[in-house]
Amino acid sequence: MLDQLIAPDIRAAIKNGEMAAVLDYFREAHPADAAEVLAGLAEEEAVAILKQLETEIAADIFCELPGDLQADLAELMPSADIAELVSELSPDDMVDTLKTLPEELMADVVLALEPAEQAEVQQLVDYAEGTAGSIMTTEFIALPGGISAAQAIERLRSEAADKESVYNSYVVDSHRKLLGVITLRDLILSQPESLLRDFMDDQVASVQADSDSEEAIHTLSRYDLVELPVVTESGMLIGLITHDDAMDAMQREHTEDMERFMGISGVHEDSSYLRTSVWSHFKHRVVWLVILTALGLVSGFVIQGFQDMLSTLIILSFYMPMLVATGGNTGSQSATMVVRALALKEIATADVWRVVWKELRVALMLSVVLGALAFARVWFFTGTAFLPAGIGVLDVSFAITLALAVQVVSSMVVGALLPIGVSRLGVDPALVASPALATIVDISGLLSYFSIARLVLGI
Amino acid sequence: MLDQLIAPDIRAAIKNGEMAAVLDYFREAHPADAAEVLAGLAEEEAVAILKQLETEIAADIFCELPGDLQADLAELMPSADIAELVSELSPDDMVDTLKTLPEELMADVVLALEPAEQAEVQQLVDYAEGTAGSIMTTEFIALPGGISAAQAIERLRSEAADKESVYNSYVVDSHRKLLGVITLRDLILSQPESLLRDFMDDQVASVQADSDSEEAIHTLSRYDLVELPVVTESGMLIGLITHDDAMDAMQREHTEDMERFMGISGVHEDSSYLRTSVWSHFKHRVVWLVILTALGLVSGFVIQGFQDMLSTLIILSFYMPMLVATGGNTGSQSATMVVRALALKEIATADVWRVVWKELRVALMLSVVLGALAFARVWFFTGTAFLPAGIGVLDVSFAITLALAVQVVSSMVVGALLPIGVSRLGVDPALVASPALATIVDISGLLSYFSIARLVLGI
Repeated sequence: MLDQLIAPDIRAAIKNGEMAAVLDYFREAHPADAAEVLAGLAEEEAVAILKQLETEIAADIFCELPGDLQADLAELMPSADIAELVSELSPDDMVDTLKTLPEELMADVVLALEPAEQAEVQQLVDYAEGTAGSIMTTEFIALPGGISAAQAIERLRSEAADKESVYNSYVVDSHRKLLGVITLRDLILSQPESLLRDFMDDQVASVQADSDSEEAIHTLSRYDLVELPVVTESGMLIGLITHDDAMDAMQREHTEDMERFMGISGVHEDSSYLRTSVWSHFKHRVVWLVILTALGLVSGFVIQGFQDMLSTLIILSFYMPMLVATGGNTGSQSATMVVRALALKEIATADVWRVVWKELRVALMLSVVLGALAFARVWFFTGTAFLPAGIGVLDVSFAITLALAVQVVSSMVVGALLPIGVSRLGVDPALVASPALATIVDISGLLSYFSIARLVLGI
Repeated sequence: MLDQLIAPDIRAAIKNGEMAAVLDYFREAHPADAAEVLAGLAEEEAVAILKQLETEIAADIFCELPGDLQADLAELMPSADIAELVSELSPDDMVDTLKTLPEELMADVVLALEPAEQAEVQQLVDYAEGTAGSIMTTEFIALPGGISAAQAIERLRSEAADKESVYNSYVVDSHRKLLGVITLRDLILSQPESLLRDFMDDQVASVQADSDSEEAIHTLSRYDLVELPVVTESGMLIGLITHDDAMDAMQREHTEDMERFMGISGVHEDSSYLRTSVWSHFKHRVVWLVILTALGLVSGFVIQGFQDMLSTLIILSFYMPMLVATGGNTGSQSATMVVRALALKEIATADVWRVVWKELRVALMLSVVLGALAFARVWFFTGTAFLPAGIGVLDVSFAITLALAVQVVSSMVVGALLPIGVSRLGVDPALVASPALATIVDISGLLSYFSIARLVLGI
């Protein structure tokens, strides 16, 4: 990684008092690279460098730092300095950065901002996490439809210089209602005297500010947009979701999905793996583990209920872990497929029976193959020494094979139904899919295992 | 979903012979929406509609269809028609579409293309899946550094009209070596007479065509780029990775990651969940399941080796599934965190001991909590009826608690080590993480369980 290569050089340069060279590095590097190097330094060194850099450059670097490091560094700086840094950022970065600060410091910094900036920040802070409004920027170019392309270019010259990125201009009416979009390319390619309203694209996709951010990212990606306009309920243009923010949000969501799948809650929200404290790692994992282990201990009661059978036929215990694990594996596969298909909108919750029918057929095929494997294992490696009088190897092999087949089929059907069911209730299916499923099929699998053995072997 | 709402209307309109209205819908809808509706129709209907639409519109819709449906529809159309459709697409979409066709049909279609298109297609097809070259487009604007902004805009007028998207222009030397980048905004805002080389940005990030596409997407996202130039070894500009293709690739990779995590191989490559056949679902899941079930059957031998102990102390069998499951849950959590941190480049393989040290401390805290839970369960719910003479409830509770603690710690350390280890070998860590891990900790967990019981209880 970059910081491991460069940080020692920078640190040596600081030690030798070569601050000019150090500052030059931070001025010239991409803010993302500079932030990585800065994060590798001692906090006092980092603060000293930020203070000596031009505010604009320091701001760009600061906003690329991990959230918890931002908070740590901010505590070491006067709040007026932080406010100066923050006010250089675009409104969405401003809000993201403010949110990482301790509440008191955040309030101080907001008070130190200019009134116009305060208002903008307030507007963005008010959108709840997970809404389109919370990931939008409020910087965009809005133009009336009645001006010419040449006039529009003139406006861009005066307005666009300090905007984060300018790919499109948006045509609005006098109430800022969104009417259409014009790409920079259209603007350049059009006749200078043609009016915007005559060559704008009026089929412009947009999302409402309070809609789900995941929905917004899906729309942006589906239509290959570089920006997605965000509007109020009445269609007034208030912001943009840009391609890079959408990509970041997508990454974040992927991480969340994978972690939720394993019963880990929100550990990645503010911080990277190594910077997250042991205590925080512990907190984010322990809740689900306690629930799952408690449920796992319940499975002990199931086995306890069949202890006489187990004492008579100890061979049944040899295959308990395999049966439980295979149920977990097959069920998790089904759940993964269904969770992912729901996320990609390949299926809707109304498709539930088509999905179950598909999984059922796949399950039957898998249970034949895995059942054959189990049958062979039991058949070839079971000496009669293990068996009480009156029970043959064939009977035992058959009972275990049948139990495995039932376990595969039921686990896969539950694995398909569970995510669709919770998704209907409005809960994120990734949240319950894998570990909860495994625990359910553990218990039901053991129950059916012993019941089938009783039925087939008559004990 | 969209197609469920509109497809019946469209189908009714087809039945009533209202083809004009149907074609109007397909002309006006966004290609992504149109494709979704088309996919809901019978294949003959879909082909009939594609034939009657203007080639350019039909091409845009066709390239948004799922890969396997493209292949099915193409089989129903003369290859000259397909070639005509395909030649309307941008080079990267052209190649993506061609790759979905059966080999013979693909060869026919390529032969029906114009020579210049054939050469372009050949160049792109030659890049292996997973390289930056395989996801790039070859359409871009390259300009010499010695022309003025006004001249550049003139060139754009003549060249840009038929390019997929124009956000940036690239400045190259006479050997097409990449020198710098100019955004459309810079072009508009600059003085008309200023030379490109004087205001271009010469700090332009790029990737080599044969580098990893994941690497390329990471670079694009890290630097918030709208496009990432792709160059040859000698720095010659040959293509671009655009933000929308990067986003699609990111989605695909995430699906792959989740599925690999559950031991499912490449099922999502060409096709959506419901369109994938039962046989194909079966094939993609069976390999890992057979391996895992076979390994699971091996755990039977471990238990078999301790059957005398089990017969004496049947209570040990009550907690076997819980022990195995907890090992799987805790180990998978660690593996998930590490796999994701590797993917986000939060950690490198060189950080292995820092990661293990962190997981070890989290594991010790978790083992105290989970151990306490298990101790309470065994302590309160074990009657002396289960125990042979000479073994007290306290001894058994202690043995099971200790075994669980050892299982949690060892599973988490293995869960952290395994992904980093295979990542060093150049294998995708998601591929082995979850199911392989679970199987390893199942077997080692049972071994340590019985060994600890023997040691503590002296049986």
